[in-house]
Amino acid sequence: MTTSKSQIKFGFDFTSVPDLVACIQKLTDWGYSYACIPLVHAKLTPDASNLDRSALVSRADVILQAETWNRVVVKLSPHLDLDSEDAVARDRDAELFRQEVSYASYLNVSAIMFRLPLDGCMPNLARLVNVALHDNVFVNFYVQVPMCSGSGANENGISSDNNGCGATDTWKLWSAFSAACDYHRSVCLALELSVDLPDEQELDRWLGEPIKAVIAPTSIFLTNKMGFPVLSRPHQTFVNKLFDLDACIFISGESNQNMKPYFEYLSYIHDNNKSDKLYSYSYAYEDLLQVPLQPLINNLDNNVYAVFEQDPIKYQQYEKAITRALTDKVKSSSTEVLTVCVVGAGRGPLVNASLKASDNSKVAIKVYAIEKNENALHVLNYNNDNYWHNLVTVVCADMRTWKFEEKCDILVSELLGSFGDNELSPECLDGAQKFLKEDGVCIPSSYTSYLSPLQSQTLFSNMKMFKSNTPMDNLHENAEQIYVVNMRNMYIISPAQPLFTFDHPRCDLERNNNRYTTLTFDIKQDCILHGFAGYFNAVLYKDVNISIEPSTFSTGMFSWYPAYIPIKSSITLKKDEQLKVHFWRLSDTSKVWYEWSISKPNSMPVHNPNARSYSMQLH
Amino acid sequence: MTTSKSQIKFGFDFTSVPDLVACIQKLTDWGYSYACIPLVHAKLTPDASNLDRSALVSRADVILQAETWNRVVVKLSPHLDLDSEDAVARDRDAELFRQEVSYASYLNVSAIMFRLPLDGCMPNLARLVNVALHDNVFVNFYVQVPMCSGSGANENGISSDNNGCGATDTWKLWSAFSAACDYHRSVCLALELSVDLPDEQELDRWLGEPIKAVIAPTSIFLTNKMGFPVLSRPHQTFVNKLFDLDACIFISGESNQNMKPYFEYLSYIHDNNKSDKLYSYSYAYEDLLQVPLQPLINNLDNNVYAVFEQDPIKYQQYEKAITRALTDKVKSSSTEVLTVCVVGAGRGPLVNASLKASDNSKVAIKVYAIEKNENALHVLNYNNDNYWHNLVTVVCADMRTWKFEEKCDILVSELLGSFGDNELSPECLDGAQKFLKEDGVCIPSSYTSYLSPLQSQTLFSNMKMFKSNTPMDNLHENAEQIYVVNMRNMYIISPAQPLFTFDHPRCDLERNNNRYTTLTFDIKQDCILHGFAGYFNAVLYKDVNISIEPSTFSTGMFSWYPAYIPIKSSITLKKDEQLKVHFWRLSDTSKVWYEWSISKPNSMPVHNPNARSYSMQLH
Repeated sequence: MTTSKSQIKFGFDFTSVPDLVACIQKLTDWGYSYACIPLVHAKLTPDASNLDRSALVSRADVILQAETWNRVVVKLSPHLDLDSEDAVARDRDAELFRQEVSYASYLNVSAIMFRLPLDGCMPNLARLVNVALHDNVFVNFYVQVPMCSGSGANENGISSDNNGCGATDTWKLWSAFSAACDYHRSVCLALELSVDLPDEQELDRWLGEPIKAVIAPTSIFLTNKMGFPVLSRPHQTFVNKLFDLDACIFISGESNQNMKPYFEYLSYIHDNNKSDKLYSYSYAYEDLLQVPLQPLINNLDNNVYAVFEQDPIKYQQYEKAITRALTDKVKSSSTEVLTVCVVGAGRGPLVNASLKASDNSKVAIKVYAIEKNENALHVLNYNNDNYWHNLVTVVCADMRTWKFEEKCDILVSELLGSFGDNELSPECLDGAQKFLKEDGVCIPSSYTSYLSPLQSQTLFSNMKMFKSNTPMDNLHENAEQIYVVNMRNMYIISPAQPLFTFDHPRCDLERNNNRYTTLTFDIKQDCILHGFAGYFNAVLYKDVNISIEPSTFSTGMFSWYPAYIPIKSSITLKKDEQLKVHFWRLSDTSKVWYEWSISKPNSMPVHNPNARSYSMQLH
Repeated sequence: MTTSKSQIKFGFDFTSVPDLVACIQKLTDWGYSYACIPLVHAKLTPDASNLDRSALVSRADVILQAETWNRVVVKLSPHLDLDSEDAVARDRDAELFRQEVSYASYLNVSAIMFRLPLDGCMPNLARLVNVALHDNVFVNFYVQVPMCSGSGANENGISSDNNGCGATDTWKLWSAFSAACDYHRSVCLALELSVDLPDEQELDRWLGEPIKAVIAPTSIFLTNKMGFPVLSRPHQTFVNKLFDLDACIFISGESNQNMKPYFEYLSYIHDNNKSDKLYSYSYAYEDLLQVPLQPLINNLDNNVYAVFEQDPIKYQQYEKAITRALTDKVKSSSTEVLTVCVVGAGRGPLVNASLKASDNSKVAIKVYAIEKNENALHVLNYNNDNYWHNLVTVVCADMRTWKFEEKCDILVSELLGSFGDNELSPECLDGAQKFLKEDGVCIPSSYTSYLSPLQSQTLFSNMKMFKSNTPMDNLHENAEQIYVVNMRNMYIISPAQPLFTFDHPRCDLERNNNRYTTLTFDIKQDCILHGFAGYFNAVLYKDVNISIEPSTFSTGMFSWYPAYIPIKSSITLKKDEQLKVHFWRLSDTSKVWYEWSISKPNSMPVHNPNARSYSMQLH
């Protein structure tokens, strides 16, 4: 788990490039790494007689080294009108498009950029991009879309003549184009910033799109008292969020000025960004899907223990909770030494917390450390000998079957997964409850899973590709399991709502831990549903909590990434619609699993019926 | 190609069955073949203490023979409230549901029937059906849905207490449920007829659903002067359409009356049905997808020739067209003997038509029969010796490359596919045009493909299963090709519109036959788009046409089934929306192909980019 900040990528967007080598030299002098240039020389005007355009060679590959081309984004000719009503012009421009893409692909450029027509008329453009993706496996497209309509579209825009059409929702255009390209991973967004920013909801929605480049015109910058370029506070905030996505920022302006101050200013902002984002501690594993741990059937390794033991918040909270519980308990108890059982003790962090809590509260305790992973027992015994003065009774047992003569006052555990109960804490603690006194306390005493609908084309396509080479019969497999993921490139459509709650100890032990809940979310703006983010909030003791649910997040705690619960196909949600989700927790003698479905605005099939794709094993 | 009428399946829907053997006897006496019975004895009321219900055995399998069970549809207990707000009741009923389905599955019944709750609250029901389909591979569900809300739902309906909710669109409920079951082939519709019929559009929409059973309550029948049950004219019309779908018709009423007259009346209707449906000549290959012929690269066999030569209409129209053309031509021609080239002569039906036309018009002709299939040449030569007095010059050649010293006056061909140009008639005739006189006539002189959006869950799921075991990488393959199919179970959403037109001869031979057309269809009611029906209309000569486009269909002609052009995923269309479709015909030196996409109401990816899944080979 690395905590170093990611490097940002800076580039400059050249309007015209009479001398490519000189341009690249200028770029390096300013401190930029990436260049965005027109592919075709500006003096080449469209001309049917000019179809083979040997003048493309004015950008001959040999003038730059291959590594340099890898840092170049080329812009297709802006005059290409691929959806012209004139069939002859359309066919000619389609052939020019094919030639330009083919040449750019040959150059191995970083990406090929073009503007999305703002009149929304783009079936032929979409077709040609689909064909290009089919023909050129390694090509990347950056689709330049202004954040607000009217911004920037005058400047060489394909659709400059359609610019008077008023307030087009450019997100919808992008969304339609992206759908027309089947959400292909190689069709990414180059978002063009505007002087006026849309409202926060709209801004956030862009963050759910696969933004790989940002075009920042110099016109969005203000000049400070010292004469240097600066951004307004809202622009700063948004740009900081874009940094988190690892997008390349292209400054766009007059290349005959010195552009170094823009680079310096944005670097300054980046380095001083105390991001208020959750999970900002870690720039690793971004948007990478991982299968949740199943510590009940798989023994964890020392690496995993070591990482989680570093959490600066979690064990503080446990210590606080145990301290309070001991203090409360000793008042009502007749014995002077209280018994604490740490179940699932691992290498002992909760034993430490218990012993510290005993010190804090001045309440004497007897500690049992129960752990089923025989490998971790070695560390527990070592710690007992060296740090715990052999005051701890170390037991190798599964808490569900351990026969204990006595009963304890406090049962401490850390069995929660990202989605709360998904590592089978309820089943484990139900099993351990038999050695808890009737008036005993469980820490945690309760936990609740939370669900938020989310939009994230990146998570969605990562999910679809999770297991490749899967036969069609198992098509559902990837979409019917739960992932753990450090989410970055996403938009939370609606705040999280509580799903399933479990309380410990419980009096109705004969009932199972099955649950069924329906949640209804109000949709505030048009967007695309790609699944759900799952969180938990746990009450350790009274008002001592740990939480990864955003509104109550335990700042600094890093032991859990959120869960991603996908759906099989994306759903278009409209403003003021309702989204209705059904979630089941089910079980049989060998396993526990979730099923989920959607009934509004459209019906979706039940996911994971009878645990066909995914389950949590009890044995 | 069989022309015999299909047998209809008749059944009786028993409300209660105190004695199963007696019931089946009664059924046989009345002439019915199928029985619909409650699975659980009526005396078994729901009771939590009764969970194992050994009394299910009152329907013990041994009392009927296994073959008889195959003709029995069982109804699940009507009181099961699977979406109760009461969790305990819900769990109990879920367990009863599981038991009943499991027992029905053991009995090998024809299907398991239940009513869809009319309040639309069915997430748990949908989940349990999904689970049952996952557990019991061979189970079939019939989902009973009244055609109009309020009809029939009082009688034992799960949702009888929700019946006062007014005019629910029951199609929408069914559609949502079907989606929640992922349009599983084993979840079929049992449509319950009502006294009042909805308007024709709504009636037709039901025909796009997978109707496997029809419940006809005796209350929808009138009594004629003789005291016998009869149906109103609109009911008759609709029932006749249902017969075409091969659904089982269950009469539902008081089983202590004699139900024979209903059977006799419906049999009478069926036998006297002069269906006005297109393609009613053939009850074979219904809704079965076939890959279109590619006669240009594959030689047809004698079976195919034999079938198509039987067409009672096509060659009449050709004869008429050639007769007119000869009559017109001889007036303007200086020669007295006209030259007719039949290109793609096959076994000679168009040679026959040409010779007959010469007789009719009293215009002398010289006939060349050009055919590339060397096997068909034997028949052409045989016919020439035996019937044509060796007046025909038989040539084995590809019309595109044949070197002919002379030029002909009339070029006759039959190269059309279901979708017009899809057997590459344009490319073939362009090649043959070099031996047509400048003022020569082509028969056909023009043809146009037509496109209609359609709803058909049956065609759609047949498409998805077309090539099984396809790896996920080729997921698009089935959805990116064109099929030929005798369409029955479908609803035409909007009338066909012309797509591509080809004229022969043409003056701009240097241009290719590529096309691009956008069509916009108005949506008259909520429905589901599953793809398009493709047709053609050809002008043979002046006003002599052949057509499979429904509004101009050449009645009696059977040589072509319509084309089915699928889409990758179904789209929900809303009343008053527009559907915008883009269609391309494209080519390179070796092949011709189509691509298609949708831009309204939602964007859909381009299908078949660069012919990755499907093309028509030129060589």
